[in-house]
Amino acid sequence: MKKLEELYRGKAKKVYYTDDKDILWLEYTDALTAGDGDKVGSEQDKGKLNNKISALLFDYLKEQNVDNHFVKQISDNEMLVKKVEILPVEVVIRNYAAGSICRRLGLEQKMEMPFPLVEFFYKNDDLKDPLINKEHIKLMNLATEQQVEKMEEISLKVNEILKQLFDDINVVLVDYKLEFGVTNDGKLILSDEISPDTCRLWDKETLESLDKDIFRQDKGSVMDKYTEIYDRIKGRLN
Amino acid sequence: MKKLEELYRGKAKKVYYTDDKDILWLEYTDALTAGDGDKVGSEQDKGKLNNKISALLFDYLKEQNVDNHFVKQISDNEMLVKKVEILPVEVVIRNYAAGSICRRLGLEQKMEMPFPLVEFFYKNDDLKDPLINKEHIKLMNLATEQQVEKMEEISLKVNEILKQLFDDINVVLVDYKLEFGVTNDGKLILSDEISPDTCRLWDKETLESLDKDIFRQDKGSVMDKYTEIYDRIKGRLN
Repeated sequence: MKKLEELYRGKAKKVYYTDDKDILWLEYTDALTAGDGDKVGSEQDKGKLNNKISALLFDYLKEQNVDNHFVKQISDNEMLVKKVEILPVEVVIRNYAAGSICRRLGLEQKMEMPFPLVEFFYKNDDLKDPLINKEHIKLMNLATEQQVEKMEEISLKVNEILKQLFDDINVVLVDYKLEFGVTNDGKLILSDEISPDTCRLWDKETLESLDKDIFRQDKGSVMDKYTEIYDRIKGRLN
Repeated sequence: MKKLEELYRGKAKKVYYTDDKDILWLEYTDALTAGDGDKVGSEQDKGKLNNKISALLFDYLKEQNVDNHFVKQISDNEMLVKKVEILPVEVVIRNYAAGSICRRLGLEQKMEMPFPLVEFFYKNDDLKDPLINKEHIKLMNLATEQQVEKMEEISLKVNEILKQLFDDINVVLVDYKLEFGVTNDGKLILSDEISPDTCRLWDKETLESLDKDIFRQDKGSVMDKYTEIYDRIKGRLN
């Protein structure tokens, strides 16, 4: 497989074409951003950890019959994925209240949700990814009603699987963001990444953050905790 | 009917108990507020116009089989209404894009919606009435699923009726906010007020504002335009 020209550059990933029209080449970078890009930083080798964690989780989800874009890991910080057109909708699933939703709705931090809360956000940096509802998605043609249903259904299935997996390794899956894309042959599948950059993860005993909140809240280097997450997942899955 | 002690003081209305446990006494005040209370003003006799406009519209909606809290007008700025427990959810219906939604979602001002857009907001001054979806309503127990469905259904019916009514008097019903309450015997009905304070209204020919945007945008006194709205509705309904 040959890496060709850059297709897209995200906040923490670069995406390249390959010589296979159905395959893209993802490179995870060491960049860290928070607050819709207001806060920027980086840590050496962070990209490698997120690549390896995402690879493990996507692979596991595939085993559990959740189709996704992951094809294979090709280096510490690179993977091949199915080429998809990413839908401009971020799906956030929350098992506990933390971060922005507490400020937004006055919820108590760390409150357990009575059910997994599903939220949609419009993926638009200029507008700072605003919260939207299904009618906004329809209005702006961000996805079809069928795609919205499917995203919700897959997200809840992913939640069941990952909540259990993280619980097995003494981690609370607090909340996380998923993105979906449509393949060249029109299939909606789970895409993007699943890593401590996109999930809020707490140690089950101490409730200490094992995710990007360390960076958001200036609590030092993320590397120890990201490494710990990788090691725990790897230990559980091997 | 006797007016008893104050039950509640809103931004532009005072609510009193009466000697009938099922009836409340509403007094419309001259206060004007915008931006979730950030901007405050008042205009003499504004309350009278909103009271009289609301009375006409609620009465007309009742004729069209939309049950609501209005009982009768008892003075220029007072009406009797059925006692309800107001649900802490504001329902906004938009036929055209204007105001906050344009900034929020990057929509073009004055864009016609392909369908009446329904949005829910959490009625909470401290949080500045944030946008919510149906799952947030369930999470915070703001209303039952059945009540949400009913609010949506009634709102769309109200929209059909009022869009036509305003169209008849050469006014575009751009968007508006509705509130709902539950009566002592458990029935969900349309409540609060429907006036140029709670609706965005444009002259059909000139697209000039005939509503509280005059105050929001410092375009002078609202009184001429509110009076014009009242006169046009009254002319159509009598």
